[in-house]
Amino acid sequence: MVLGIDVGGTKVAAGVVDGNGAILEVIRRATPGRDARAVEGVIAELVQELGARHEISSVGIGAAGWMDLAGARVVFSPHLAWRDEPLRENLEKLLHRPVLVTNDADAAAWAEARFGAGRGYSRLIMLTLGTGIGGALVIDGGVERGSFGMAGEFGHQIIMPGGHRCECGNRGCWEQYASGNALGREGRELAKKHSPMAAGLLAAVNGKHKDITGSVVTELALQGEATARELVAEVGDWLGLGIANLAAALDPALFIVGGGLSAAGELMLEPARRAFSRNLTGRGYRQEAVITVAQLGPMAGLIGAADLSRR
Amino acid sequence: MVLGIDVGGTKVAAGVVDGNGAILEVIRRATPGRDARAVEGVIAELVQELGARHEISSVGIGAAGWMDLAGARVVFSPHLAWRDEPLRENLEKLLHRPVLVTNDADAAAWAEARFGAGRGYSRLIMLTLGTGIGGALVIDGGVERGSFGMAGEFGHQIIMPGGHRCECGNRGCWEQYASGNALGREGRELAKKHSPMAAGLLAAVNGKHKDITGSVVTELALQGEATARELVAEVGDWLGLGIANLAAALDPALFIVGGGLSAAGELMLEPARRAFSRNLTGRGYRQEAVITVAQLGPMAGLIGAADLSRR
Repeated sequence: MVLGIDVGGTKVAAGVVDGNGAILEVIRRATPGRDARAVEGVIAELVQELGARHEISSVGIGAAGWMDLAGARVVFSPHLAWRDEPLRENLEKLLHRPVLVTNDADAAAWAEARFGAGRGYSRLIMLTLGTGIGGALVIDGGVERGSFGMAGEFGHQIIMPGGHRCECGNRGCWEQYASGNALGREGRELAKKHSPMAAGLLAAVNGKHKDITGSVVTELALQGEATARELVAEVGDWLGLGIANLAAALDPALFIVGGGLSAAGELMLEPARRAFSRNLTGRGYRQEAVITVAQLGPMAGLIGAADLSRR
Repeated sequence: MVLGIDVGGTKVAAGVVDGNGAILEVIRRATPGRDARAVEGVIAELVQELGARHEISSVGIGAAGWMDLAGARVVFSPHLAWRDEPLRENLEKLLHRPVLVTNDADAAAWAEARFGAGRGYSRLIMLTLGTGIGGALVIDGGVERGSFGMAGEFGHQIIMPGGHRCECGNRGCWEQYASGNALGREGRELAKKHSPMAAGLLAAVNGKHKDITGSVVTELALQGEATARELVAEVGDWLGLGIANLAAALDPALFIVGGGLSAAGELMLEPARRAFSRNLTGRGYRQEAVITVAQLGPMAGLIGAADLSRR
């Protein structure tokens, strides 16, 4: 058995994973603020608890952020306090087991490639749509990390110079157009304009336009609310355009879409596929990639981190 | 010795290449229109002529277009008549030697990686700036072709939705902003507006604004003409923005810029480097790639095709 730990901004989840990617047991704790030592303490508690009930040979940590190529250091983590932190060294002292540190999007892509929607594909791109766009490229049985370990930041490709400001400091990043945050922002903007089209959105949040989030719009779209469906389809259009860009550059046979926003399913993917086909360079003269939803759900990162720690 | 053949829209060049990437002899013919059989005939003549003077073990063909993964078929070639053409089979019958069919940008990247500006780098992207942007990604000693053999079309990543129309049928492709064609178009537009800033450009073409091309502007910029320098710097800005996008996605340690437009040298690369640093996501928290000019010049494609045929 190997152990995967998903360190999020609000929760730390730990799961025992077998050789087929199945989770035998999972436990969770609240993320103790941004303090690096406290987070390491929580990880140690979780490993101790699960280690009492399972034979655990290694531990994989998945978190948002940039990890070094060796899987040892967190270079930078957006919602945690790790800054060039030797997390593997710190944790191996506490856990007495080999530790691998990995990016959560890389880990999720690895899990989908090995055990989920990507089985049988030698090249795929996984896109995790949530606050932003997590991304990873899997080639021939390995996650492509780049020269400095920072490949896969597809969400920060600029597709609209001078466009919406991104948390990364740039303007016009793809994730400002094709993410849960983008969907929420569009919903709020529509509501603030007092558009009659926003009536359904506002009714769902008791008139408080600030409470319109990507999840709220997704939920309404699934219930059939017309404006919410339009907004989801718009995000799908941007998703498809960006996927066409990635196909031009990298030409994988498969794109897997996961993350919270993928709950919208075909309401988003059908427009995405149309936009993809319409924007793909060389269309008509080439094979086209498949665009599909992830199969492993929110546990993909944990499963992938665990499995990667085995190698 | 191996033989490399560069099939261009106007000329077919054949060169004998040794194991160090040096060219021993090169000969050229005009490309006989768009007829596929006639082009194959010219290739056969060139191989026969060089084969009489050198021991040639294999032949690599480089051409613009999409080649299948096996190096056997031309799927589509923009300025030649090849459409799903079994070029390797056709040529092996004529040449009695093993033949490899490869994309010219892939071949040039391979040559630079093995013998030129990319020596010592395990990951690099080569951009060939001419009419458009040829591109290729080299990872760990191989050209990354994608699932269907069409990876590396970086120039057709859409960076300006609704922007300039591209030959590929889309709008806003990167190569409409960072190529020799883009430079020429900007020069002509400025001249057509009767801008006093275009006086230097118009003087160079005897007032015929239609004669302003990317090469004309590049040449004027190198001579110090102020407007030409601005236009070249603008192309450099777009080049740097697109390189930042590629760094976000693929994080190679090196970008090599080749092709006719690279004659502008630092006049283009210096603004490109500034735009790259300004648009790179995560700047300040990551190592930055080097942007440099190609070393092998216009023969890179021929050298690379020859060397790839050896494998």
